Amino acid sequence: MRIALLQINTTVGDLEGNASLIAEGVLESARQGAGLVITPELSLMGYLPRDLLMNEGFIKEADATLGRLARELVDSPAVLVGTATENPGTTGRPLRNSAVLLAGGDRVAAFHKTLLPTYDVFDEDRYFEPAPGPHVLEWQGRRIGISICEDVWNDRDFWQRPRYPVDPIQNLAAAGAEVIVNLSASPLVAGKQKLREKMLSHMAHKHGRPILYTNLVGGNDDLIFDGRSCAVDAGGKLVARAKGFAEDLLIVDLDPVLAGRIELEQSQPEAEIWQALVLGVRDYARKTGFRSVLLGLSGGIDSALTAAIAAEAMGPENVLGVMMPSPYSSQGSVADSVTLAANLGIRSITIPIEKMMGSFEQALAPAFAGRKADVTEENIQARIRGNLLMALSNKFGSLLLTTGNKSELSVGYCTLYGDMSGGLAVIADLPKMMVYSVSRWRNQRKPDIPAAILTKAPSAELRPDQTDQDSLPPYDILDRILELHIEQNKPSEYIIEQGFERATVERVLRLVKIAEFKRKQAAPGLKVTSRAFGTGWRMPIARKM
Amino acid sequence: MRIALLQINTTVGDLEGNASLIAEGVLESARQGAGLVITPELSLMGYLPRDLLMNEGFIKEADATLGRLARELVDSPAVLVGTATENPGTTGRPLRNSAVLLAGGDRVAAFHKTLLPTYDVFDEDRYFEPAPGPHVLEWQGRRIGISICEDVWNDRDFWQRPRYPVDPIQNLAAAGAEVIVNLSASPLVAGKQKLREKMLSHMAHKHGRPILYTNLVGGNDDLIFDGRSCAVDAGGKLVARAKGFAEDLLIVDLDPVLAGRIELEQSQPEAEIWQALVLGVRDYARKTGFRSVLLGLSGGIDSALTAAIAAEAMGPENVLGVMMPSPYSSQGSVADSVTLAANLGIRSITIPIEKMMGSFEQALAPAFAGRKADVTEENIQARIRGNLLMALSNKFGSLLLTTGNKSELSVGYCTLYGDMSGGLAVIADLPKMMVYSVSRWRNQRKPDIPAAILTKAPSAELRPDQTDQDSLPPYDILDRILELHIEQNKPSEYIIEQGFERATVERVLRLVKIAEFKRKQAAPGLKVTSRAFGTGWRMPIARKM
Repeated sequence: MRIALLQINTTVGDLEGNASLIAEGVLESARQGAGLVITPELSLMGYLPRDLLMNEGFIKEADATLGRLARELVDSPAVLVGTATENPGTTGRPLRNSAVLLAGGDRVAAFHKTLLPTYDVFDEDRYFEPAPGPHVLEWQGRRIGISICEDVWNDRDFWQRPRYPVDPIQNLAAAGAEVIVNLSASPLVAGKQKLREKMLSHMAHKHGRPILYTNLVGGNDDLIFDGRSCAVDAGGKLVARAKGFAEDLLIVDLDPVLAGRIELEQSQPEAEIWQALVLGVRDYARKTGFRSVLLGLSGGIDSALTAAIAAEAMGPENVLGVMMPSPYSSQGSVADSVTLAANLGIRSITIPIEKMMGSFEQALAPAFAGRKADVTEENIQARIRGNLLMALSNKFGSLLLTTGNKSELSVGYCTLYGDMSGGLAVIADLPKMMVYSVSRWRNQRKPDIPAAILTKAPSAELRPDQTDQDSLPPYDILDRILELHIEQNKPSEYIIEQGFERATVERVLRLVKIAEFKRKQAAPGLKVTSRAFGTGWRMPIARKM
Repeated sequence: MRIALLQINTTVGDLEGNASLIAEGVLESARQGAGLVITPELSLMGYLPRDLLMNEGFIKEADATLGRLARELVDSPAVLVGTATENPGTTGRPLRNSAVLLAGGDRVAAFHKTLLPTYDVFDEDRYFEPAPGPHVLEWQGRRIGISICEDVWNDRDFWQRPRYPVDPIQNLAAAGAEVIVNLSASPLVAGKQKLREKMLSHMAHKHGRPILYTNLVGGNDDLIFDGRSCAVDAGGKLVARAKGFAEDLLIVDLDPVLAGRIELEQSQPEAEIWQALVLGVRDYARKTGFRSVLLGLSGGIDSALTAAIAAEAMGPENVLGVMMPSPYSSQGSVADSVTLAANLGIRSITIPIEKMMGSFEQALAPAFAGRKADVTEENIQARIRGNLLMALSNKFGSLLLTTGNKSELSVGYCTLYGDMSGGLAVIADLPKMMVYSVSRWRNQRKPDIPAAILTKAPSAELRPDQTDQDSLPPYDILDRILELHIEQNKPSEYIIEQGFERATVERVLRLVKIAEFKRKQAAPGLKVTSRAFGTGWRMPIARKM
């Protein structure tokens, strides 16, 4: 038997478009001799549909689309399509997260997800009722255990503390499944693929059954799905792996031994992050209908890396860089940006902001009489720039990218409605040190980012001779404290025990807390770490502690 | 036996402060002869602590604070304190949502929440493991059934479709509880109190046991808890009700018959909404450390109502209204605002924006050469105003309130980084028609809002002779369509069947969809309806449908 893992890039809510992707994939699988096709989780609806799932119209239309798809594929191999189905019970959530088997022109069977994640970015208990128990598919003389995403993430030997009392894979094995398949929509966390394959290998070996895993690929708002669908044999050996960050069709033979093709992995985290962000920008623009993007170029490393990613994602001809120097901008800031733009092949324009600064100063002079200059005047500059960029975005129908990094966003070293303006925050989940290392990695391939940008001291250039390090601890220290606090949820005492100065730790944690109101209004940021600001970071604003 | 329902206004994360509120309440309850005190859900931590619950340091400190509170109250009546406790199990979520009984200087027993809501604004499955089963407290010869918030919201006769298979109240009754108490943190939905009391009455009557219900009061970010703790007797009759929108201590005697005091209710929805928004503004400012607020006064009804609410919440001397006329502003817009400010007793200043508009026009002229004026130029004006207001906010440490209503926010009739700028969106959950009716209600008490503001055609005044109705359907129609779509999740076909024009419905629903990116970056808005934009509205941006 030959099984096709159909790794597609779906769009949330685009039932027709997603059905077409599935149909094309099934036809191609047929040409390659597959008898069963496995799609990603919720492949018909796109992942995550979120509260679209609460709209009856959407559920009905999905059901109608599924029926049409079944009829269209009447003469094709069977396919497991991910979709939400109605829960027939009289209590509980109204839906189930399901894999529906289409064969011979009809819906033949439905299998439901057992484990519904509610951590990080997930809210599945909001919508779905769990499956009542294991349900094995008998197909072409094989007993196939169907699982969905989280169902494979709860092995009680692999994890120190399983999140759920039930292990659906163990239950499927006990119910006689010879092979386990998994429909997945597992978002990227840099380095996660190793863990995934190790876990699947452990489980396959433990249960003595092969596992075939189809993952989603593509960017959907803040989440980037990395693909890399794979198969491990009953001994736990990886025998097939699809491409990362691209659509793919991975054919796996079950007999005489499990076999497939293995795509090589780029092992460097910088390479993985680069590909993820390129895909994230490209898909966000495509799925929201933008053909071009723009961004402010400050002469710093953040906007340089963002521009390089944008150029690769959109094509350099569809990227506009905007220099907006003030009297506080260094000589190099415009010159370095011009060089960067030329190297990348993107368009650029310069709009000095001094006159607008003057008009604000004049307008506010009566109200500000007798008050000293402070951060207010810095923010006014940043917001003039935000206004200019949004004006260009509005006039030309171009998506504004924000350029702030995770370190800044953590401690609030950014201006709400100023440099935070934009529709997508490209590097908002990259700590500053990672911004440097991804930039250096990018420059090894082609040295587009001028050396001056890579080596100058980071500065917001909002007052004379300002540098970030006037206000913040050195970034190598800051980033390590933030990682412990944000990704690992560690309290201050623990962080101090790791060798950081108490005063620094307490100051950083305080800054993180008081910047909450800014993050609440931030643009969606592409997630690449285990915990990004966004749907996986849910903090009250009005709080002590 | 005498039980005290301690309705307090907690602050999220303020363990010491909340413990003090509890201690003071217990001492007062003792003076009034109570033998047991019931606090709201998670009263020690404040509700909702959200991802603070993932920080080990917070959990440990809460536990230590609880120990100190127990010792402090060694000679006081017993008190049920709401807090998160560690789940001793080896699988599952690490915490439980608990009511811990403090008595004689120690933690005597702990009771856990069974039903963990994951709809609307709730994410409790993210943090908590459900209680294993019913657990009845024996205290002073009584068998008291302890339940927490959602536990009372799943009666299988009262609801058409219970959300959970378990009914914890039925289980407590079956386990021998003579009286049911509930620790609650139930946020306001206008009109919900009637439903609450009806439901509690139904359950008390059905099980033949009194129910005593302690609710939280106060604003916490977007959520407003309305208090109105109450008690119903075994026959289902309401015998006690605490104040709405204020702290209170409600004493309930169990013998010889259940008895207490009943605070009168303001039955008009406008009165309820007014009180809620005043409390929401006051608490947001207080809990984030602001003593004063400011807002833009456009001459329209939205900013007028927001100013009136702010004046009542903060005291008029702590409110600044800012008029920022442009060449497109009507004669009346500044004059009406001046009158409004004088009537309310708030300060006001005027900053014309024409010169700043000119400086932007000039700066963008090269880039915009050959292009016609469009919405871009309107947005520039709104963003100049946003920049001015934020500058005043930054300079004077004053909280900027945004003034947009729910109808605008639904269809995107607002400018991101412009009129959407601010820390708290006061009337963001009020449809425009409700803005009018609350304003008229307010004016009946004291006619501070000039008649001209109440009667003029709504206009953004961003181009000559503009009115809202040039771009939008009449508000009475728009609001009804939006209510069906947003609060009731109805698809377009259903809405059309209610008698609205297809073209209008489809246009409105399309506008709602494409405005998603704006709402994602909106300030927190005070919730008063069953579904507000905010944590209860989780929509993908990049989507079809």
